[in-house]
Amino acid sequence: MSNPLSHINAAGEANMVDVSDKQVTQRSAIAEGYIYMSAAALSAVIEQTNAKGDVLATARIAGIQAAKQTSQLIPLCHPLALTKVSVDFAIEAEQSRIRIEALCKLAGKTGVEMEALTACSVAALTLFDMCKAADPAMRIDGIRVLSKEGGKTGHWQA
Amino acid sequence: MSNPLSHINAAGEANMVDVSDKQVTQRSAIAEGYIYMSAAALSAVIEQTNAKGDVLATARIAGIQAAKQTSQLIPLCHPLALTKVSVDFAIEAEQSRIRIEALCKLAGKTGVEMEALTACSVAALTLFDMCKAADPAMRIDGIRVLSKEGGKTGHWQA
Amino acid sequence: MSNPLSHINAAGEANMVDVSDKQVTQRSAIAEGYIYMSAAALSAVIEQTNAKGDVLATARIAGIQAAKQTSQLIPLCHPLALTKVSVDFAIEAEQSRIRIEALCKLAGKTGVEMEALTACSVAALTLFDMCKAADPAMRIDGIRVLSKEGGKTGHWQA
Amino acid sequence: MSNPLSHINAAGEANMVDVSDKQVTQRSAIAEGYIYMSAAALSAVIEQTNAKGDVLATARIAGIQAAKQTSQLIPLCHPLALTKVSVDFAIEAEQSRIRIEALCKLAGKTGVEMEALTACSVAALTLFDMCKAADPAMRIDGIRVLSKEGGKTGHWQA
Amino acid sequence: MSNPLSHINAAGEANMVDVSDKQVTQRSAIAEGYIYMSAAALSAVIEQTNAKGDVLATARIAGIQAAKQTSQLIPLCHPLALTKVSVDFAIEAEQSRIRIEALCKLAGKTGVEMEALTACSVAALTLFDMCKAADPAMRIDGIRVLSKEGGKTGHWQA
Amino acid sequence: MSNPLSHINAAGEANMVDVSDKQVTQRSAIAEGYIYMSAAALSAVIEQTNAKGDVLATARIAGIQAAKQTSQLIPLCHPLALTKVSVDFAIEAEQSRIRIEALCKLAGKTGVEMEALTACSVAALTLFDMCKAADPAMRIDGIRVLSKEGGKTGHWQA
Repeated sequence: MSNPLSHINAAGEANMVDVSDKQVTQRSAIAEGYIYMSAAALSAVIEQTNAKGDVLATARIAGIQAAKQTSQLIPLCHPLALTKVSVDFAIEAEQSRIRIEALCKLAGKTGVEMEALTACSVAALTLFDMCKAADPAMRIDGIRVLSKEGGKTGHWQA
Repeated sequence: MSNPLSHINAAGEANMVDVSDKQVTQRSAIAEGYIYMSAAALSAVIEQTNAKGDVLATARIAGIQAAKQTSQLIPLCHPLALTKVSVDFAIEAEQSRIRIEALCKLAGKTGVEMEALTACSVAALTLFDMCKAADPAMRIDGIRVLSKEGGKTGHWQA
Repeated sequence: MSNPLSHINAAGEANMVDVSDKQVTQRSAIAEGYIYMSAAALSAVIEQTNAKGDVLATARIAGIQAAKQTSQLIPLCHPLALTKVSVDFAIEAEQSRIRIEALCKLAGKTGVEMEALTACSVAALTLFDMCKAADPAMRIDGIRVLSKEGGKTGHWQA
Repeated sequence: MSNPLSHINAAGEANMVDVSDKQVTQRSAIAEGYIYMSAAALSAVIEQTNAKGDVLATARIAGIQAAKQTSQLIPLCHPLALTKVSVDFAIEAEQSRIRIEALCKLAGKTGVEMEALTACSVAALTLFDMCKAADPAMRIDGIRVLSKEGGKTGHWQA
Repeated sequence: MSNPLSHINAAGEANMVDVSDKQVTQRSAIAEGYIYMSAAALSAVIEQTNAKGDVLATARIAGIQAAKQTSQLIPLCHPLALTKVSVDFAIEAEQSRIRIEALCKLAGKTGVEMEALTACSVAALTLFDMCKAADPAMRIDGIRVLSKEGGKTGHWQA
Repeated sequence: MSNPLSHINAAGEANMVDVSDKQVTQRSAIAEGYIYMSAAALSAVIEQTNAKGDVLATARIAGIQAAKQTSQLIPLCHPLALTKVSVDFAIEAEQSRIRIEALCKLAGKTGVEMEALTACSVAALTLFDMCKAADPAMRIDGIRVLSKEGGKTGHWQA
């Protein structure tokens, strides 16, 4: 039976998968995540956002920058020349949370879901950093891949 | 009323808080997080871990390295000379998840909870990367601060 | 006569100045710079800024992040744990330019003017990047130190 | 009317332009910049350079290294696998300045003028760092693109 | 006669070689290196490794990560999108040393021997760091290229 | 008996040593290393160096920059604010080699020998990169600590 952990070889050693012979195809991935915070903290974000403050812009830039650094953060990720990164936010006041969605694209040999997940995670951490004086008990939740396209497996949807 | 978002100034602009006049004190923070995966993926991790493969070691190193890069990832974080970082894992098979706990310490002017949260997040992303061939539908959840010590506010517990 | 280039030793070799025995004092530096652009490009920035778009926020974050990376960019700079960085913009429509001002602070052994200059430069480059489709002939000008405080030389003003 | 700021979307949000469908073509860009300094500081540089000291070599290496880090410094720049970077200096004693010229090349989907501008800026900052003991009032000026080749727009000259 | 130092131009200036017109071919390189240590230190590594501790895993991850950062460490190296990196260890107790072997692969325009050498060097440094309390007099030796494939020169063997 | 590998805990896990309670003292370390090359390659370096080309300057800058990045390269190293780094070369033609010596200094809680070793290694790799067209069979050898000062152990000499 084949090893289900593709990055670990038969000897149990960490292993950067060889993608030398894979085809260059158009690839994309969408990931999402949430940060839950108190009503007071969320009100402060909403007020800032209505006043067009930099809260969401700062988190968006942090997420985009992080996507480009994924291979430096995650040891077995390949360095990739991303052709597109975007990070979007939706304030969902009833659930006391902010939703984060990240899209990454690439013409390359391996998928970009780790880049999209990294963008979501770092955007969430940046929101945490800016709101932690208002609510130190926030929680980052539900970081996952929504869909991916390209490569041998083609379309995948959560 | 004072602005509850300390990193945003009166004009709504992102702002690295001035800690020049804060005291240097011993500080520490503990954060946790979880990655949920299918029984099959978790079995693969358990089998690898029992066989002493590199799965958890790889995620641990990634988390420690990320803690040291926090100020490059999160725009308004101060650069800090961490004196201690550790990352620990507990496989919780009944809940189909792996628990991650990170501890950071510093003798400095500002808290280290963002560093602990970043360590947890990147350790979780690294586990995701290694297990995604076995289960692309994993979910990173419950990233939060458990406790922090030091500074003007002293002890805080979730 | 002593060598006026402090980073070059008697043999002409590049040299990171030894600050081991210098006192830790409160230090700060303010730098400024300008980017000149066509009326059309500046109008687009003004319109975006009035509509509270992310143009200036993006350049501000880039400048703050760059200040923290100064010692990685400039070979003979010491790594410094900045305690404060801010970047501000003023749109000066009559002169067809945007003014950038950066402030850095540190309790440390060496000055922070290179950090403030780096923040200005990278903020200007980021504005260039965002406006280059509107005007590829922009010019970054007048990057210099306005004032610095702290250390043996005390107050210095341009 | 289309938005003249290509990196800002209709909602005013920062946006990494999607280059997935652009052609890979040979691209190059040349940028220039100047650093003005006192006669005394410039004399020190000339003397060092005549004595074949490391002043210009240090600034050259810093500029080349910075070109390769452009996408980490400028938030909306794509990561690019540059095929050539060079940085040249001309000491222009009559104008009390050093001229910097940077060339970048790439076979890729997007232009390299930001890389050339970044190389010029960081080379200038490095000269500033090495000469600041001799003249703290230096000024970096005239950073701009001289020409670019490749892509849909073809040849552009300042 | 042509200059045998390809990265230095006719004026003696450091120079990133222009690979714009080179063919994209499959390339690979294998490098090796050794760290010599006292019998006591090597015993500790062996004991740890038998107990499946993280010693070799930590050095392996450090080597893989370093390969991906080669162009940021070595000024005239081109940024490369490596398709494969692996790092292996052999404990050679009779010679009181650990052997390190690194393999890098790329479909690209320039060779990857610097990446393989960097992986070996940083893996060796990481072993040094972990063992230095047991033996501060260790020695890293014999870092060299064993073989390379691809490009105009084709196969090369040490 | 205590574990001789200080970075590995009782469970065999990689571990960043806690230096929170250590004293801040003046620390320094000197490391050396060698690169051996063919007579032809060494002649090219000598000729370049006599002509005051950038060969050694480039390697020196690379070594200095690498010392500052040590904690990003070596997973369990603490981030340190080095107060001094220098890298020197001696061409030893009779032994067909170049000797590299690096000095690092710090007022801090932990030693700087890893920083000095990293500076030597990356300076050697940079020389390798520049000379590899002249001699692909070079060998980096004898990287070790010569002496260190400061901290609880005081003076140590190889």
